[in-house]
Amino acid sequence: MLDKMIDVAVMASGGGTDFQSIIDASESGEIDADVKLLITNNPDAYCIERAKKHGIDHHVIDHRGKSRQEHEQEIIDVLEKYDPDLIVLAGYMRILTDDFVDRYHGKMINIHPALLPLFGGEGMYGEKVHEAVLEAGMKRTGCSVHFVTSEVDGGPIIDQRCVPVKNDDDPHSLAERVKKKEHELLPSVVGAFADDRVRLKEGEAVLVSEKDN
Amino acid sequence: MLDKMIDVAVMASGGGTDFQSIIDASESGEIDADVKLLITNNPDAYCIERAKKHGIDHHVIDHRGKSRQEHEQEIIDVLEKYDPDLIVLAGYMRILTDDFVDRYHGKMINIHPALLPLFGGEGMYGEKVHEAVLEAGMKRTGCSVHFVTSEVDGGPIIDQRCVPVKNDDDPHSLAERVKKKEHELLPSVVGAFADDRVRLKEGEAVLVSEKDN
Repeated sequence: MLDKMIDVAVMASGGGTDFQSIIDASESGEIDADVKLLITNNPDAYCIERAKKHGIDHHVIDHRGKSRQEHEQEIIDVLEKYDPDLIVLAGYMRILTDDFVDRYHGKMINIHPALLPLFGGEGMYGEKVHEAVLEAGMKRTGCSVHFVTSEVDGGPIIDQRCVPVKNDDDPHSLAERVKKKEHELLPSVVGAFADDRVRLKEGEAVLVSEKDN
Repeated sequence: MLDKMIDVAVMASGGGTDFQSIIDASESGEIDADVKLLITNNPDAYCIERAKKHGIDHHVIDHRGKSRQEHEQEIIDVLEKYDPDLIVLAGYMRILTDDFVDRYHGKMINIHPALLPLFGGEGMYGEKVHEAVLEAGMKRTGCSVHFVTSEVDGGPIIDQRCVPVKNDDDPHSLAERVKKKEHELLPSVVGAFADDRVRLKEGEAVLVSEKDN
């Protein structure tokens, strides 16, 4: 039997290193997933260059000058054309409406640079997360991939990884260390979707791993 | 120059596996610490047997029928006799008064079976912690050693470790996995005290490790 490949759409607003981690895992055959398209709201985002370089369709859908609903409808129109099996929010910096989130219930995931439920929610993005971790004096932090629900960063957690916090860390150095771990975690979760090892059951994420997590 | 040994007092209320982990690290020479005494409030606690087996003084100071102040004064009387460099709360199941805590500011530590500030505070002990972790759907949890302050489980974190949460975990199986990690973390922190690599500076715990954490 041939392995089934899943089609993946990525939404990003910035440099796209998480996006790149999925591309790399896909191209190396590590995961049975094709990255079919990138959607970005930021015409200047470097993730666009990554899409071009790897021959991945990209759609710049600028949010400026539009209502949230209008903007999301344009995204929906593109997504309907590709009908991806999985939508990955990889540093996508816009809050999504409940309607949008509900439409992709169970097939949209997000990566967050902390051990949720710690340091999540509105206003907790980018280096602010790592500032909060340092402020709390934590000696371990990490990253989380979760299903997207209407609660910001509050959906069922699919998987997490930890990294140490070092004495001389600043938010930037900590962000870099967490990013590296994100680039392991995110492809691993996408691969689990491709292998049908992730379920959203009764509002809970279940990750079935041969490697026993 | 001869290595300086520190004298350690342990306070525990139960089986004493964390206590045992310090004894083992001390006896093997892994850490420059002597476990000088055990204080327990529970006359039936198995930790007493461990103290006897390893020739460690033990003091059963039952809290029943005494005011909290009276009980703590008895503990203080014992501690003054031994004058330990470090007091380790290793599963000690009594809340301490601010007076007691202030007296040992910077030289009393506690181990908690979660990644503080998650799942700490009053009422969060034993398997309740692990129930809460499973309820939150976390895929990583861990343990923390922190300085004891008047805020229950809220003192500056000295060090932490992570463990995976597995799909088929119940609170008991998860507690067992975290315990194993506690038995690495706790001796490691006691060893750091012995080597003078832990400081409480302006209300923050700083762990200076050659191993770079």
